[in-house]
Amino acid sequence: MNRITISPRIRTSPFYRSTVDAGLSDISIYNKMVMPTSYGNLKAEYDRLINDCAIWDVSVERQVQIAGPDAHACAQYLTARDLTNMVEGQGKYVAMCDHEGRILNDPVLMKLSGDRYWFSLADNDMLLWCRAVAAERGFDVEVTEPDVSPLAVQGPKAEDLIVDLFGEDPRSLKYFWFTETDLDGIPLVLCRSGWSKQGGFELFLQDGSRGDELWAKVVEAGQKYNIGPGAPNHVERVESGLLSWGGDTTPDSNPFEAGMTRFVDVDCEPDYIGKAALQKVMANGGPERLFVGLFIGPDTDSGDSTADDAVANAWPLPARTPVRHQGTEVGTLSAVVHSHRLNRTIGLAQIKRDVVEANLTVEVEGPNGSAPATITKLPFL
Amino acid sequence: MNRITISPRIRTSPFYRSTVDAGLSDISIYNKMVMPTSYGNLKAEYDRLINDCAIWDVSVERQVQIAGPDAHACAQYLTARDLTNMVEGQGKYVAMCDHEGRILNDPVLMKLSGDRYWFSLADNDMLLWCRAVAAERGFDVEVTEPDVSPLAVQGPKAEDLIVDLFGEDPRSLKYFWFTETDLDGIPLVLCRSGWSKQGGFELFLQDGSRGDELWAKVVEAGQKYNIGPGAPNHVERVESGLLSWGGDTTPDSNPFEAGMTRFVDVDCEPDYIGKAALQKVMANGGPERLFVGLFIGPDTDSGDSTADDAVANAWPLPARTPVRHQGTEVGTLSAVVHSHRLNRTIGLAQIKRDVVEANLTVEVEGPNGSAPATITKLPFL
Repeated sequence: MNRITISPRIRTSPFYRSTVDAGLSDISIYNKMVMPTSYGNLKAEYDRLINDCAIWDVSVERQVQIAGPDAHACAQYLTARDLTNMVEGQGKYVAMCDHEGRILNDPVLMKLSGDRYWFSLADNDMLLWCRAVAAERGFDVEVTEPDVSPLAVQGPKAEDLIVDLFGEDPRSLKYFWFTETDLDGIPLVLCRSGWSKQGGFELFLQDGSRGDELWAKVVEAGQKYNIGPGAPNHVERVESGLLSWGGDTTPDSNPFEAGMTRFVDVDCEPDYIGKAALQKVMANGGPERLFVGLFIGPDTDSGDSTADDAVANAWPLPARTPVRHQGTEVGTLSAVVHSHRLNRTIGLAQIKRDVVEANLTVEVEGPNGSAPATITKLPFL
Repeated sequence: MNRITISPRIRTSPFYRSTVDAGLSDISIYNKMVMPTSYGNLKAEYDRLINDCAIWDVSVERQVQIAGPDAHACAQYLTARDLTNMVEGQGKYVAMCDHEGRILNDPVLMKLSGDRYWFSLADNDMLLWCRAVAAERGFDVEVTEPDVSPLAVQGPKAEDLIVDLFGEDPRSLKYFWFTETDLDGIPLVLCRSGWSKQGGFELFLQDGSRGDELWAKVVEAGQKYNIGPGAPNHVERVESGLLSWGGDTTPDSNPFEAGMTRFVDVDCEPDYIGKAALQKVMANGGPERLFVGLFIGPDTDSGDSTADDAVANAWPLPARTPVRHQGTEVGTLSAVVHSHRLNRTIGLAQIKRDVVEANLTVEVEGPNGSAPATITKLPFL
């Protein structure tokens, strides 16, 4: 395990001091920022997320703001989903593609007003992409990265905590919808969102100088809900089938191969980047690969724990590895975890569509050799 | 010091196994890849670079290839430097800017042929930028990230080592010029380049499956030159005034503020992105800030080592910090090191031009309080 060299090239978040004080032990780099990944006890962090309430510094989830008279037209052109009927205060999970239909990012797009949108982004410098497109296309917009840093509160008790802090209104927020508000004067956007399936909210802090103050207020109010620090949880996200763009996708994946088919309006009337390419994929019968789950090794309840041991330690997977059928490569595996709730080793993979549709058994490489795996739809839970 | 979570979202290099075997101890993340930063003895790595010969895995220096009938026109449009007279086999250090004249990257641009160019990049996903511009502008080119991974050999003995491996021809290569060749069948581009001022070459491996093989051959041939592992050396690069884009620059820096004035052809006849903005900067009297060196604290030879101690431990600087003149902020400090050759604490900063031109004394924040600093031109050595 190597030390990481921190330099001005890599930023820390407005909550960084608080995360260190909370016992931060593991990090990754995401959008050129330090992203907390653990506080030293992954199982406790998982249990807290499933049963109680966790606070996550997810300020690495940067916003690209499109603002100006052409904001709607520009956001639409950048997005493979019909935004015609989107209203203020609404968010949508969208795919951004390049002109070849390759998925570049899977942000939540938030409509703050008729002339202001945020793409709330996964790990890719979409500021470059959006600025190039806006300037070359001649959209009358300003494309910026505003001072906005999300703090997530996730878990079954998160809603009660948010109500304690903000009153009853947030209970009626639909998923990905949001409201501009403040907490004792700290300006933020409160959104029902977060990279888990356990429910919760994200507080988009709008003043980077007040991160530790916001963290402290949330932690204090969360004591009665057993709040504790956590991070986007690898086991829960695999169980929930949540996409990690750039991890689960290859550089040439289209959004259908990333499990986003239902979020793409292929024939959307307003033009968007990649439309012709995605239409062609569908005209040719659909994507070559599908994003699926794998049950790896035997069911532990079968009593055959030896074979299961062969794969249970495969986390973290340092790189995508081949998935094979009778020795022939048919896809790539991008995550392997032991699911605490299923008591099974499970994984995420992109696998050739014909193999998925024929429901063939496949093999993956575990630390102790090849292990059989069966394909299943996502999510697991 | 936190552990880093490695996942498929972050790649390792074709030389990764070799770097681990060589005792890799410290890393950073650069262009979404693991970048070796030390093998546990920074002073020995420095001495090796200054006196002998070091091998560096710099495959994080990704290439964006522009290929096709419009390759020259597209490369020119992306570059704030006149490429009219560039010939095959030539490289140029260039600035890539956005439409507002902000510097996006400071690559070496390599002309492989009339219809194929590589931008050999600093830490920013220029593949997105180049693809967006090429597609929206309608250039007839393919924009890709080819299977190319540079391995650097740096130091005064590097040339003799390269001659042992490739014959006498490389001696006549001018700086940034290159040749396509191979080493015992391993395909590569050999370029006189590298992120140090100690001389040397970069071997742009063109087959990612053969990284460890190439590393082993170079190390074997380098034994007589005391070769050893290293990485882009923070102390040497500060002494040499080499720019770290994204570290030394702010998001709104123009290339003049990054010390690149002599590499920019502002009024270049063929149009390039940012031309109007850069012309305006010059028409308004020049950049607001300059990229300069700082001598921090007293000259150690003066015998006043106490004050020097106040800043000598400031490395690494985790973030840019303010530079002040009589309490007023006049710039930002981006690096502080103790120069072994100068026996002084030195730094890199962006400082307001009028302060630089008046040669005012400034102050920086050290770990033990404020320290005086004097401005000097780059490089230090």
